[in-house]
Amino acid sequence: MSVTTTPEATTPPSGTSSGPASTTRSAAAARERTAELEQLIAQNPGEYRVLTGDRPTGALHLGHLLGTVANRVRLQNLGVEVFLIIADYQVITDRDDAGDLPATVREVLLDYLAAGLDPERSTVFTHSAVPALNQLLLPFLSLVTVAELERNPTVKAEAAASAERGGRGMSGLLFTYPVHQAADILFCHGNLVPVGEDQLPHLEATRTVARRFNQRYSAVQPYFPEPDALIARSPTILGSDGGKMSKTRGNALELRATEDETVAFFRRARTDADRTITYEPERRPEIANLLQIGAHFTGGSPQALADEVGSAGAGRLKTLVSEAVVEGLRPLRDRRAELASAGPRYLAEVLASGNARANEIADRTLDDVRGLMGMRY
Amino acid sequence: MSVTTTPEATTPPSGTSSGPASTTRSAAAARERTAELEQLIAQNPGEYRVLTGDRPTGALHLGHLLGTVANRVRLQNLGVEVFLIIADYQVITDRDDAGDLPATVREVLLDYLAAGLDPERSTVFTHSAVPALNQLLLPFLSLVTVAELERNPTVKAEAAASAERGGRGMSGLLFTYPVHQAADILFCHGNLVPVGEDQLPHLEATRTVARRFNQRYSAVQPYFPEPDALIARSPTILGSDGGKMSKTRGNALELRATEDETVAFFRRARTDADRTITYEPERRPEIANLLQIGAHFTGGSPQALADEVGSAGAGRLKTLVSEAVVEGLRPLRDRRAELASAGPRYLAEVLASGNARANEIADRTLDDVRGLMGMRY
Repeated sequence: MSVTTTPEATTPPSGTSSGPASTTRSAAAARERTAELEQLIAQNPGEYRVLTGDRPTGALHLGHLLGTVANRVRLQNLGVEVFLIIADYQVITDRDDAGDLPATVREVLLDYLAAGLDPERSTVFTHSAVPALNQLLLPFLSLVTVAELERNPTVKAEAAASAERGGRGMSGLLFTYPVHQAADILFCHGNLVPVGEDQLPHLEATRTVARRFNQRYSAVQPYFPEPDALIARSPTILGSDGGKMSKTRGNALELRATEDETVAFFRRARTDADRTITYEPERRPEIANLLQIGAHFTGGSPQALADEVGSAGAGRLKTLVSEAVVEGLRPLRDRRAELASAGPRYLAEVLASGNARANEIADRTLDDVRGLMGMRY
Repeated sequence: MSVTTTPEATTPPSGTSSGPASTTRSAAAARERTAELEQLIAQNPGEYRVLTGDRPTGALHLGHLLGTVANRVRLQNLGVEVFLIIADYQVITDRDDAGDLPATVREVLLDYLAAGLDPERSTVFTHSAVPALNQLLLPFLSLVTVAELERNPTVKAEAAASAERGGRGMSGLLFTYPVHQAADILFCHGNLVPVGEDQLPHLEATRTVARRFNQRYSAVQPYFPEPDALIARSPTILGSDGGKMSKTRGNALELRATEDETVAFFRRARTDADRTITYEPERRPEIANLLQIGAHFTGGSPQALADEVGSAGAGRLKTLVSEAVVEGLRPLRDRRAELASAGPRYLAEVLASGNARANEIADRTLDDVRGLMGMRY
């Protein structure tokens, strides 16, 4: 639900977006563009500003790390300015009870920092703390029609899911979600948004809003960038039950897990009946998942790891992967424990300073927008 | 389009709202409640806070004065706190070009002040200048469903009008308008909203948002009031062509009109072929309109004025009404000329101080709302 590829996000399954032909074509173009962007980023990281984030619905897990968080840290370390939104308003798009938000926000923040996000270089902020960002929703809503919102893939998927549940109807907040997302990305002139391939259409609403705003109010010199998608080709990480790793499924290995919990998680991991380990993602998803996780932490390829284990079988694979993860996450675990034991003050300061920076930028953008729209009196 | 009964507002015609029986029943109840409220206001004006306003689409005219502005001044002078929103974002709900907003806002502000709104007692502010008010749109949108928005009378009427025009579809900003209105009213804990009888259903969305917010986040002690409608029984003022007075129809007598323009306006006014003047609003709307305007400025009743003119005919009626309006608007005209000639500084100060006060209140409300929703970190 955020501008993220988080496994937690309620995103429509691939292919629900538009015709398969156009999806494939645009996905191919986006992959090509991503390769080009990676080169440009390497040359001029200072030209790029990434906006991404998560819904604070629970502590982050291994799926988040490999899916999105590691990539954000990589971009930050390349010198790209990263904005991370903890999207608290998005928690109530599809549920009444947001749970203990302060506790969840704290855990997510701990996970970010432990994973290597540096608050000196990256900006972490909460949605609800930046009024000028949220105000952008109003002018932006004037730039899209209800019919366009109804056709939006996220909105369509949610409308269908809501009808299936037969329960509460879709909220106005979910319906207007693509426009909030535009505000989230454009308030800081974000020009790079990491997304999964199946989320490509999600960025289109933001690009449309930016284009129309520029056409209507800033024709001579476009004010907003039309952000690029940076396709993350990270694998989908499976949980202990063989389904996609997700907090709500209760099958996740949280980043805050202890060594023992980590070992136990992999001991429980589902495999299959074939003795010899091979890397066949389509036919053997559980084995492939373990190989991908292992490869991430050993720095090799899933194929090489499969060859290494070979006939030693799933037990050996589990042990290898378990050890690699325990070892690989040790710095994260240590840093997390250190931050957690330091008490709430540091975390509060990180968030306050991120919010202050986000507000400073949002205030400036809103002031520009009011000026461009002729609303300075 | 604002929380107003302005002739300018794009409101649905009476009766489009819900079943005629329920409309009548609720209208009767609202009229009864209005009588009760007027007594309560007279006893304890300090208990009430009015939120109302206008879309800045042009200078105000006689229809605004008799329809809404005079009533606002009356409430202010009774000691009720009046908040007046100049709803600039609402101008772009249904059009691309908002015109020269700074000039229009200036004219509306001049009209308010000239008509007797006292910036020491009432708060005038612009929608776009109060980010915390606008942020309330997000939590409030989570409290309503898309189906409810589709059923909203304003939204339905606009959807129909938009389909008729065959032109641009309804904007997301118009679709979510009932929820903005809730934010406009509730940000300052407005508990009294002057509306025309046909606009009663418009307030329902605000009452629903307030009720649901209280139920979900503030069950022990309701945080938001469920505002009451104060039914204005002012007549619909007709323009020089016999149609409803409206800037866009070009048939309006603007409040800034000179004496000569005022006289010319009434000389042009349409009447009918009957020689003797009688007060029959249904059968003789143009004559009734002149009688109502005359009665407003002479302090009598339309019936009494009709009896006075009698067989002297429409010419005599026009002269009488014209003289009454010229005389009645003299203080307004003088004050307006004085303010206009004083230069832009005073007006800018009035607006800046209104915006500052609105922001102070909105910031406090948003902070409370974040606290109640568990979004303080």
